[in-house]
Amino acid sequence: MNPYHKPESLLKLNPRGLVPTLEYNQKPLYESTVICEFLEEAYPNATPHLMPTDPYTRARTRIWTDFVTSRIIPAFHRFLQHQPSSSSSIDDVRAEFLDKLKQFTEAMDPVGPYFLGEEVSLIDLILAPWAVRLWVFDHFKGGLNIPQGEAWERWGKWLSVIEKRQSVISTTSDREHYLPIYQRYADDTAQSELAKATREGKGVP
Amino acid sequence: MNPYHKPESLLKLNPRGLVPTLEYNQKPLYESTVICEFLEEAYPNATPHLMPTDPYTRARTRIWTDFVTSRIIPAFHRFLQHQPSSSSSIDDVRAEFLDKLKQFTEAMDPVGPYFLGEEVSLIDLILAPWAVRLWVFDHFKGGLNIPQGEAWERWGKWLSVIEKRQSVISTTSDREHYLPIYQRYADDTAQSELAKATREGKGVP
Repeated sequence: MNPYHKPESLLKLNPRGLVPTLEYNQKPLYESTVICEFLEEAYPNATPHLMPTDPYTRARTRIWTDFVTSRIIPAFHRFLQHQPSSSSSIDDVRAEFLDKLKQFTEAMDPVGPYFLGEEVSLIDLILAPWAVRLWVFDHFKGGLNIPQGEAWERWGKWLSVIEKRQSVISTTSDREHYLPIYQRYADDTAQSELAKATREGKGVP
Repeated sequence: MNPYHKPESLLKLNPRGLVPTLEYNQKPLYESTVICEFLEEAYPNATPHLMPTDPYTRARTRIWTDFVTSRIIPAFHRFLQHQPSSSSSIDDVRAEFLDKLKQFTEAMDPVGPYFLGEEVSLIDLILAPWAVRLWVFDHFKGGLNIPQGEAWERWGKWLSVIEKRQSVISTTSDREHYLPIYQRYADDTAQSELAKATREGKGVP
């Protein structure tokens, strides 16, 4: 469905009209992370698993999944929606976003290729849709300008395996479909809840 | 430990110095909700359980636990730290906080007494420390002024069972110990990360 023209069927399940919204036994669920953990628990035999089995690693998975939602995505949008008239400079919002990506990368398993090691997890998949759209900064904002250095080699390794994952490829559209949407973000005229929250200096709604 | 004078032992585990921080096998964990889910999973035979067993109800538990952290607590602090010089009126921030409590109450199991029904869960316990300190609004901010009405009867039933729970009583200090701390919040001069985030118009750090 088109989240810019919310159908009644969506609003009936989720009055805030946010996607994703899941209907399960005629009852609604929403919030990306909640839905992912629900799918893991409701279909425990499905693989790959989104959550590891060890309690400590599960807790770390939740901490870094939340880091993506509460730190990386808001910084992505502050950078993307930055305007020459903004109070901070484009260099500041770029540096802030790169700093978040660097913190994320430094917490990765050193070998990888995924965040936790050999196996993909919720941490990787929650960031994947944003990670494969980093080209928007080259297109609209003068470049992402990732520096050289060891920390960033690990980032490159992670990004490369994410970009090649079949589930990511199958759920990513061609750039031409994203361009008009991201043009509105880049001009800071987008009307999604996320765009509006970013304009108000808030996080992911 | 005293979070206003962070000892080195805390900063070594958690550079941001936030409480709670848990050390488990020489490794750190932080974030209240993450720690609670970790304790549930690391000690699966301990009761009462913080999480229900049914996957759908577990997902709902996570949605409403997050509602406490991302909606109720920030609104609590906007009200508590409100100043006559603020851009919004005290009536506005009071109404916003009451609206969040009402949404929370309307999502409760109608009979209760706990949010999900007969059994306590993470949702109840994550709000409990704030719920038993609602007196701060009477003391500092001219009253919480909960209206009459059926929705609020359910809230009263919930609050009453929370206030009488032994674990809540055992972990609540006498008011005289909270007064100087909350005086600084009420004057909007508190220097905790939460106080600063509220001043900047942000959510729970």
